[in-house]
Amino acid sequence: MTTPARAFGTHAATQPLGLFHFVRRDPRADDVVIDILFCGVCHTDIHHSRDDWGRANYPMVPGHEIVGRVSRVGEAVTRFQPGDLVGVGCMVDSCRTCAACGKGWEQYCESGSTFTYNGVDRQDGTPTYGGYSDHVVVAQDFVLKMPEGLDPAGAAPLLCAGITTYSPLRHWQVGPGSRVAVVGLGGLGHMAIKLAKAMGAEVTLFTRSASKEADARRLGADQIVLSGDAEQMIAAANRFELIIDTVPYAHDLNLYVPTLATGGTLVLVGFLGPIDPALNTGPMVLRRKAVAGSLIGGIAETQAMLDFCGQHGITADVEMIPIQQINEAYERMLRSDVKYRFVIDMASLKAIA
Amino acid sequence: MTTPARAFGTHAATQPLGLFHFVRRDPRADDVVIDILFCGVCHTDIHHSRDDWGRANYPMVPGHEIVGRVSRVGEAVTRFQPGDLVGVGCMVDSCRTCAACGKGWEQYCESGSTFTYNGVDRQDGTPTYGGYSDHVVVAQDFVLKMPEGLDPAGAAPLLCAGITTYSPLRHWQVGPGSRVAVVGLGGLGHMAIKLAKAMGAEVTLFTRSASKEADARRLGADQIVLSGDAEQMIAAANRFELIIDTVPYAHDLNLYVPTLATGGTLVLVGFLGPIDPALNTGPMVLRRKAVAGSLIGGIAETQAMLDFCGQHGITADVEMIPIQQINEAYERMLRSDVKYRFVIDMASLKAIA
Repeated sequence: MTTPARAFGTHAATQPLGLFHFVRRDPRADDVVIDILFCGVCHTDIHHSRDDWGRANYPMVPGHEIVGRVSRVGEAVTRFQPGDLVGVGCMVDSCRTCAACGKGWEQYCESGSTFTYNGVDRQDGTPTYGGYSDHVVVAQDFVLKMPEGLDPAGAAPLLCAGITTYSPLRHWQVGPGSRVAVVGLGGLGHMAIKLAKAMGAEVTLFTRSASKEADARRLGADQIVLSGDAEQMIAAANRFELIIDTVPYAHDLNLYVPTLATGGTLVLVGFLGPIDPALNTGPMVLRRKAVAGSLIGGIAETQAMLDFCGQHGITADVEMIPIQQINEAYERMLRSDVKYRFVIDMASLKAIA
Repeated sequence: MTTPARAFGTHAATQPLGLFHFVRRDPRADDVVIDILFCGVCHTDIHHSRDDWGRANYPMVPGHEIVGRVSRVGEAVTRFQPGDLVGVGCMVDSCRTCAACGKGWEQYCESGSTFTYNGVDRQDGTPTYGGYSDHVVVAQDFVLKMPEGLDPAGAAPLLCAGITTYSPLRHWQVGPGSRVAVVGLGGLGHMAIKLAKAMGAEVTLFTRSASKEADARRLGADQIVLSGDAEQMIAAANRFELIIDTVPYAHDLNLYVPTLATGGTLVLVGFLGPIDPALNTGPMVLRRKAVAGSLIGGIAETQAMLDFCGQHGITADVEMIPIQQINEAYERMLRSDVKYRFVIDMASLKAIA
């Protein structure tokens, strides 16, 4: 009833990731078995591996930006067949019955969605293990079709970094002529630029370093604004309908709120915690501005994002690594030393004797 | 070219209000001269009189909840004639050409709207003096028609407290079946309850005191939730599509954000300043919640609010005072000792020899 699986995982917050053997369930009627080709490396993987958020369950196999090929399907599976190129993102299940799930907002499932790793399977109570592994078994309703023509390695980060930025861009109705700014040029930020540009927006990158300009423009930004330059910040006042703030630690939002247009929203997609320094409500009240949060996206929305990326030829800029380099990759990510996403070539795991 | 006017005003932050003589301009072609009958007393009047916000200009005549009768009109005035019952709110002018003004958002005018008092007239650079006076001269485009059938004293607070709560209720699309909560039961809060109820919403008052329940229900609340009762707060989790927060000082928003429904917004209408304690973004990111601000409303929206109040028979609950009691009224407001708005009967000013 189970199949041996190999992965890179960890047994404790203080341990590096290493080879880990476990078992995956055999497919249920509606399950798809996926032979993993590539898995993106998200900051969340570091946080969970090291129990930064105090909710880690060990042993843990991280990874929720999964691209692979279907190797087997349960007897009730209608949407996939062996050989299909598919993706799995941050969720592998949800209650499917609450109001949020009914709206296609599985990420906001009222009883909590089942995360791809560090979660608990809703049917048998076993832990979920992520994509730093040779295969994964996922219910078909949470499996995405990967569009033709996209490099599958570059497409892997779309499953988290892509949808996390696409969802607020769509929710706040970005389209041709919208003025969008992005804070932070990392895995999420570089996707936000590409996606906003493809939606027709005028895109600005806020950055502390003028050295990022060439890269920002190559990714699609129309301009950069140096957040440390008071004159540039004043010139940007009341300008942006939406700011996608991807910074994953506490930072001064009071720099950016004044650059929102009247009625605009700054949406946090990377930081959970107390806003420090304190958020000043003055500019918010005086021009009906908002600060909001957003979490990944729903399943149908993720499929729409993948289809959009297929149409526009959008993938992440990735640096491929063998799984043996994952611990070093984590250290480099903590130094922001990656352009812009590590992706694990899972052939490296399969090659281990 | 000017007409003598009498008012209650102040010459310094530390002085009480007292009788003040000045002149109003004679009407320009598009001006309406209004004989003031009633003027509501807003917390802002205290803040400006005492220079709490550091932007006071003296001498100052407060008052921006004005109801009166037209006594004279300029030759180009088409919308009003002598005898009409009219209102004036927080603004008497704006640039009328910027994008915000074009959308009817004069309160968010890009060059700053001209406030009814403590402002500067856009044409002649003279100070604006407010409604604690016998008459006022206002361009017709910033004069509102008061609906038939409403008590004019009770209607005066609609011009600020009414529109300040109506605008976010409309902007965030409250309607039949919406779940709305209100924080703070004062001048703004009691209007928010009445207006949300009339729009068909299910209305909840957050309060620290069970003693407010009877009054809250009389005003239209369906229930109260005691914000100091952890069980009640947990039971209210993820419930409200919109929270209108009228509290005029720093307070803990982390109590209320968890009670927003997924996608919901807490809108601050009474507090400008740093959020203390720090706002935690966790519940915002995990369920796409927002914290926003909102400022009064536009002129067309204010007229729509007045018409709505006329249809539904909505006025503020007021305590009438003669102008001689204004300083005592300020002290009582600072102790929250008013249900729910002081309104000055301007006959008391005219009776002064």
